[in-house]
Amino acid sequence: MKLAVIPGDGIGVEVTAEAIRVLDALVPGVEKTEYDLGARRYLRTGETLTDADVESLKSHDAILLGAIGDPRSVPAGVLERGMLLPLRFALDHHVNLRPSRLYPGSATPLKNPGEIDFVVVREGTEGLYTGNGGAIRVGTPQEIGTETSVNTRFGVERVVRDAFDRARARRGKLTLVHKTNVLVNAGGLWQRTVDEVAPEFADVEVDYCHIDAATIYMVTEPSRFDVIVTDNLFGDIITDLAAAVTGGIGTAASGNIDASGTNPSMFEPVHGSAPDIAGQGKADPTAAILSVALMLRHLGKAAEADRVEAAVEADLGSRGDGPVSTSEVGNRIVAALGG
Amino acid sequence: MKLAVIPGDGIGVEVTAEAIRVLDALVPGVEKTEYDLGARRYLRTGETLTDADVESLKSHDAILLGAIGDPRSVPAGVLERGMLLPLRFALDHHVNLRPSRLYPGSATPLKNPGEIDFVVVREGTEGLYTGNGGAIRVGTPQEIGTETSVNTRFGVERVVRDAFDRARARRGKLTLVHKTNVLVNAGGLWQRTVDEVAPEFADVEVDYCHIDAATIYMVTEPSRFDVIVTDNLFGDIITDLAAAVTGGIGTAASGNIDASGTNPSMFEPVHGSAPDIAGQGKADPTAAILSVALMLRHLGKAAEADRVEAAVEADLGSRGDGPVSTSEVGNRIVAALGG
Ligand SMILES: CC(C)[C@H](C(=O)O)[C@@H](O)C(=O)O
Ligand SMILES: CC(C)[C@H](C(=O)O)[C@@H](O)C(=O)O
Repeated sequence: MKLAVIPGDGIGVEVTAEAIRVLDALVPGVEKTEYDLGARRYLRTGETLTDADVESLKSHDAILLGAIGDPRSVPAGVLERGMLLPLRFALDHHVNLRPSRLYPGSATPLKNPGEIDFVVVREGTEGLYTGNGGAIRVGTPQEIGTETSVNTRFGVERVVRDAFDRARARRGKLTLVHKTNVLVNAGGLWQRTVDEVAPEFADVEVDYCHIDAATIYMVTEPSRFDVIVTDNLFGDIITDLAAAVTGGIGTAASGNIDASGTNPSMFEPVHGSAPDIAGQGKADPTAAILSVALMLRHLGKAAEADRVEAAVEADLGSRGDGPVSTSEVGNRIVAALGG
Repeated sequence: MKLAVIPGDGIGVEVTAEAIRVLDALVPGVEKTEYDLGARRYLRTGETLTDADVESLKSHDAILLGAIGDPRSVPAGVLERGMLLPLRFALDHHVNLRPSRLYPGSATPLKNPGEIDFVVVREGTEGLYTGNGGAIRVGTPQEIGTETSVNTRFGVERVVRDAFDRARARRGKLTLVHKTNVLVNAGGLWQRTVDEVAPEFADVEVDYCHIDAATIYMVTEPSRFDVIVTDNLFGDIITDLAAAVTGGIGTAASGNIDASGTNPSMFEPVHGSAPDIAGQGKADPTAAILSVALMLRHLGKAAEADRVEAAVEADLGSRGDGPVSTSEVGNRIVAALGG
């Protein structure tokens, strides 16, 4: 197994180190190549992501990413539009998979969270993330800025099918989240695609929810969700909210998946590089470790993924209210895995 | 004072009746004209909003709306794109004002809500709500659907100025919510407009938050917000979430305001027509009654608005956990106002 590792910036470096320790304890002999991508490289060389980087990354079985960015020195958008998003597009990461689970002991802000266990299948290569749009008369009173959400039947159908597959393998419920009452072109395409694929999955119950109402359910009745399928931007929003209601982005993992298997998929914590706490050994590596579990499951190693998840669950359940130390969490998980 | 009243559908009719009773108890002699708009008229005549309706509405000082729609008989989008949105555009309701307050006794889903008291200034006439975009090859495997967010310096600056004014009159903090790291054209315009107007409001502290992060703060630290300014779609999403964290859309009021005063502004509860509970006297008219308060404040009747809000606060604080009755809530508020 050939793994590309992008530790990135800030706490990305620290949490990735623990994730790798966990991987090594479980699957010996993984061949790793580290990539220098992110704010540090950009500040040093002016480069965000070169064609050579992409070609080289493609020769791996999977990619593990820590976190990218340093808002203190790199303007908003530079690394997002120069590295993170181009990577998703170049590697056709159309299934942006984000599971949400309320682990025992997690610090949910909800009074009565109930059981929370769902996954969001966020489309990753279309919508408002395509960079379509532009601006004229910038800086004048006549400035106009546009952003265009592009949605194709091809792009929507493949994630809808992926989401139906996942729903079938879980509790059998799929919720489309969109804003069909306003965004009639994009929303119509999404709704019709779900409706047309649904008969092939007669065992899956289909539901629909506007994005605004979905945020309400997320805090009042999150247990209603099993698999959510949605577009790129709505998925961005709802998964951060989902991470918050399950106790914070400290435990939220994600996969950027090319479901066709043509390109390596990439796994990463949902959290950012948090430069304010970087280098202090304070960052919780749980999300990075759970990203390893997602990766193992994606690569067909379900038993190993189960073991990581069980170890994380036990660790979270045994924690007190105090602060965590990055390496201690890693130590405990590695020890639980017999490493 | 000439008031146009659009009770609309479902519980809209019931809650509007109570709102009008409260208004009558406080400001005698308001001349009211009722408009038949919404699902019932559409199903009878096929009409959503005619030019004659708009012209006639324009001759009033303000508009009070209940709720519109009947998802059981009118397809999604018909009334939204045929009536609600055209009305916002025709009357240039660019300031969509949505206050959020945690009233004592409210059923917030949060464990530790803290003090919640902020207003969202949502832009109401631009962004993804303009109906720009289209579709080709609909129903084929080659279908493409697009939605274009249109943002103008003119449109952004007027709501940013309105939001700064409100921040100055409140706790002096303004938070721009957007997604500038991805939506660089629209986001750049919003961010630069805020930056350029800010020096005129040196007493207002300015903050920025991505929409995804804003949903996290909304459930973990909502007290950080004073005035939020954001675009049409982000405003739609964040205000529903805000309504949820302050105890449900039963108390969320909103104003669709033409800040230039050229056209009458419109006041309405954020909730929908809820056909499932319509006609049973179960709907909470509080949001509709608070919409009357917003309207009175907008029309310069601050003392009257204060009285309504105080009566609502007292009523919410004295409620038990049981269900409310529409008319009882109205009775209690009217009684508190000495009516
Ligand atoms: C950093 C940003 C471009 C990214 C996104 O919007 O997709 C992030 O918020 C995420 O959710 O992965
Ligand atoms: C009904 C719908 C068109 C509307 C919107 O999206 O603006 C509603 O959700 C609101 O918030 O007023």
